[in-house]
Amino acid sequence: MSRNPAGPEIERLIQLLAKLPGLGPRSARRAALHLLTRKDRLLEPLSEAMRIACERVAECSVCGNVDTQDPCAVCRDPRRDPSLIVVVEDVSDLWALERAGAIAARYHVLGGTLSALDGRGPEDLNLATLADRARDPEVKEVILAVNATVEGQTTAHYVTDLLADCDVKVTRLAHGVPVGGELDYLDDGTLAAAIRSRTTF
Amino acid sequence: MSRNPAGPEIERLIQLLAKLPGLGPRSARRAALHLLTRKDRLLEPLSEAMRIACERVAECSVCGNVDTQDPCAVCRDPRRDPSLIVVVEDVSDLWALERAGAIAARYHVLGGTLSALDGRGPEDLNLATLADRARDPEVKEVILAVNATVEGQTTAHYVTDLLADCDVKVTRLAHGVPVGGELDYLDDGTLAAAIRSRTTF
Repeated sequence: MSRNPAGPEIERLIQLLAKLPGLGPRSARRAALHLLTRKDRLLEPLSEAMRIACERVAECSVCGNVDTQDPCAVCRDPRRDPSLIVVVEDVSDLWALERAGAIAARYHVLGGTLSALDGRGPEDLNLATLADRARDPEVKEVILAVNATVEGQTTAHYVTDLLADCDVKVTRLAHGVPVGGELDYLDDGTLAAAIRSRTTF
Repeated sequence: MSRNPAGPEIERLIQLLAKLPGLGPRSARRAALHLLTRKDRLLEPLSEAMRIACERVAECSVCGNVDTQDPCAVCRDPRRDPSLIVVVEDVSDLWALERAGAIAARYHVLGGTLSALDGRGPEDLNLATLADRARDPEVKEVILAVNATVEGQTTAHYVTDLLADCDVKVTRLAHGVPVGGELDYLDDGTLAAAIRSRTTF
């Protein structure tokens, strides 16, 4: 008995949807069906939006963000402080900082971290232009907003060395208790860091 | 400060992805980013698969399934028992029965249920051709595989009346304990139905 009530084109759509984060094989099937039964309202607009994204979206040659223009909207925004560059691992980190409205700076997306285990060296990251950008006399501070993981910290040390001969201050994100977090659920390292970096009340 | 690090084309892609079942605004953003940073491997193939689906996928004129051919693969499959028609509410129910390999029959997709509350009457369902299909002398049995909800049961009664003058047996799915289910977690209605329909061991 056929266990495949749909043609190969639909199966391929399901397989590709299943590669999206947050969708597994089962939910991809449901998503495909949702699309196919709402052709005019959803499948066609989404197909068109993807086609446009395919054509127009590219990596920003300055910072590594993805956008439909090069330089990207963030790099072209005149309201941002030109003396600050925030170094992030991935575009998702850039978007997270923007969502939080954390800082009105420009960014530099590394595109990953150094990792001896995974064989990723400095040449695999978007590091070539970072020192040049930091040498711009307008730039005063480079903020390392990398993840607080072993790879993130290794990368932060490498970037600090790389920028040693540039006339910029290199800073990193504060460690501490997450806002809304409960002490009882935090790991020892975070608690120790929060105590070390305590501030006057 | 701009809270939108990407252009309107990307925002539109995120908004459309958020309409898929299983994806909310946050996971749609992650999915969009996943697509945009994997342009060759994922965004382009998925865009192409959607374009093909847009062009080729249509409702089967016989049963209401979605497929790239009309009649659909299920209706054209010669290995299926031509004496059985399984009536389902939605294409997802058809796919679920096919996934389970539950029966080698043909289907009839109603496209919803009767609902006085939501103002859905018989004219909103794919009922026009069902009686004609049931009058085919080859067809011996119509199985009502509708949901065990109030709307589903109302619809089942309506379909039964509709088929009253056709020479077919009208059956419905058995009620009972789900395979792998525990009695303690079942509702009273299911338990009562399982007792009523008990079989010899």
